[in-house]
Amino acid sequence: MKVEVYAAHSHVSEKDLRGKTVVVVDTLRASSTIVTALANGCEQILPVLEIGQAIDLKDSMRELQPVLGGERASVVIPGFDLGNSPLAYTPDRMSGKTLIFTTTNGTAAMEKAKFADTVYIGALINGMQVARALSKVENAVILCAGSEDKFSLDDAITAGYIINGIKFEAAEQVALDDLGAVCESLYRSNESDLMGAVKKAAHAKELMQMGFEEDIAYCVQCDTTKVLPILRDGRITV
Amino acid sequence: MKVEVYAAHSHVSEKDLRGKTVVVVDTLRASSTIVTALANGCEQILPVLEIGQAIDLKDSMRELQPVLGGERASVVIPGFDLGNSPLAYTPDRMSGKTLIFTTTNGTAAMEKAKFADTVYIGALINGMQVARALSKVENAVILCAGSEDKFSLDDAITAGYIINGIKFEAAEQVALDDLGAVCESLYRSNESDLMGAVKKAAHAKELMQMGFEEDIAYCVQCDTTKVLPILRDGRITV
Repeated sequence: MKVEVYAAHSHVSEKDLRGKTVVVVDTLRASSTIVTALANGCEQILPVLEIGQAIDLKDSMRELQPVLGGERASVVIPGFDLGNSPLAYTPDRMSGKTLIFTTTNGTAAMEKAKFADTVYIGALINGMQVARALSKVENAVILCAGSEDKFSLDDAITAGYIINGIKFEAAEQVALDDLGAVCESLYRSNESDLMGAVKKAAHAKELMQMGFEEDIAYCVQCDTTKVLPILRDGRITV
Repeated sequence: MKVEVYAAHSHVSEKDLRGKTVVVVDTLRASSTIVTALANGCEQILPVLEIGQAIDLKDSMRELQPVLGGERASVVIPGFDLGNSPLAYTPDRMSGKTLIFTTTNGTAAMEKAKFADTVYIGALINGMQVARALSKVENAVILCAGSEDKFSLDDAITAGYIINGIKFEAAEQVALDDLGAVCESLYRSNESDLMGAVKKAAHAKELMQMGFEEDIAYCVQCDTTKVLPILRDGRITV
C-alpha cells in the first residue's frame, strides 16, 4: 500500500486525491476539537469555510439549536458559542448537539478533501484508530492543514505517528513518499518527548503566547479515544 | 535574521518572496548542472519554461551559437545538444558559451523566484558559498524545486546543509520556520552518509533506475566550487 503526505491543503490538487482515502490532520487544534466534540456526544459537525455561512446555516436550522464553534486568528469568533479549544467541547455542551464549525486552516483542508473517496479526521488523540482504518486501503493520503499554507511541525509529527501505526497494522508493505518518510523519522526521533517537539512548532509558540498551553498539552496525547470521525456529504459523524 | 524553506515552487506565492533573497535549489539535477556549467566557463544561462521558447530563443540569437540544454522526464529533449546531466557540461562544451536551459521543476522554480529581490542558484556543490551570501541578509528563502509539486528529500537535505552553513556564518541569531528546522535536523542526522540519505529520495530512485547514478554521486558532494550563480533579468551569470 502507499501513503502520501501533504503539508498544507494548498499543496494538493483534485487529481492527487481522487480515488484515495484521506485523513485531514489539524492537530492544533481543529481536528483535536472535532474528535473531542464527537467523543463527548456531539451528533454531527457541519464544517464551513466562512463565518457568514456558519451564521446563515445556524439560522436555517434553528429548530435543532446548533452550537456555533470555531476561530479566526486563534480566538473565538464574535457571536459564536465556542472557540477552537477542545477543552471547551465538554459532554454537557455537546451531548446530542449539532455543531457548525469554521476554522482558518482545518475547514479549508476538509473542503479540499471532498475530492477523495473517504475522508477521516485525525489527530494524535485518535491516531491509532485512524492508522487502523488507513492500513486497510490501497492509497492513503495524510492531508495536513498546515499553518497559513505552510508546513507545520505539529501536523508533521501527527502524520509520523499515524504512519508508524499504519506500518504496525498493515498486512502488506507500506510505501511512503519523501515527506511521509521524513514525518515518520521525525515522530520516531521525538517519540520520548512529543510535547517538547510540538512546542518548537511556530504555531504552538503562537498558541502558548496567547495562553493556550493547556490546549496543546491536551492535543499532544496519543490515543485517548477510539472515535474515528468521517466526513461525508458535508457532515462529520462517527 | 529569518530563513524560510518552501518544498516546491507551487507552494509559494509572490507575497512570500517580495523583498527577500531567494536561493533556488534543485539538487537533482538542474541547479547542480547550472553551477557546473558556470564553473566550467559558461558565460550566461538563459532559463526558459517551455521547449518551444528555448528553440525560438536559439534561433533569435544564432550569431552567439548558443547551446540548448535541459530535460523532460529526466532525458535529453529531442533536438537539444545536452540533457540535464551536470557531467556533460564540460569546459570544452561550456567555455565562453551561452546556454539556453529548460527543465521540469527547476526552471519553473526560477520563474517563480523572479518576485524576489535577489535570486541565487544553489546546490550541495556550492552550498557553503550560497550560505555565506544568505547569511548577510535579513530575510532569506530557500525555494526547493521539489518533484512534481511535492517535497523532495534531496532538496530538503540541501536546504538543511545551507541552513547549517548560514548558522555557521551569520553574525546574528537565525530564526527558522518549521520546515527549515526539519531540514536542518534532517541534514545533521544524515551528515555522515549524505549519499545514503539522498538515495532514499523517490526522485533519486527514478534517476538510478534510468542509469544516472553517476550524476547523483556528483551532485551529492559538498562545496566542490565557489561559483555562486545569480539570476537577474532572465539571465544567470556568476
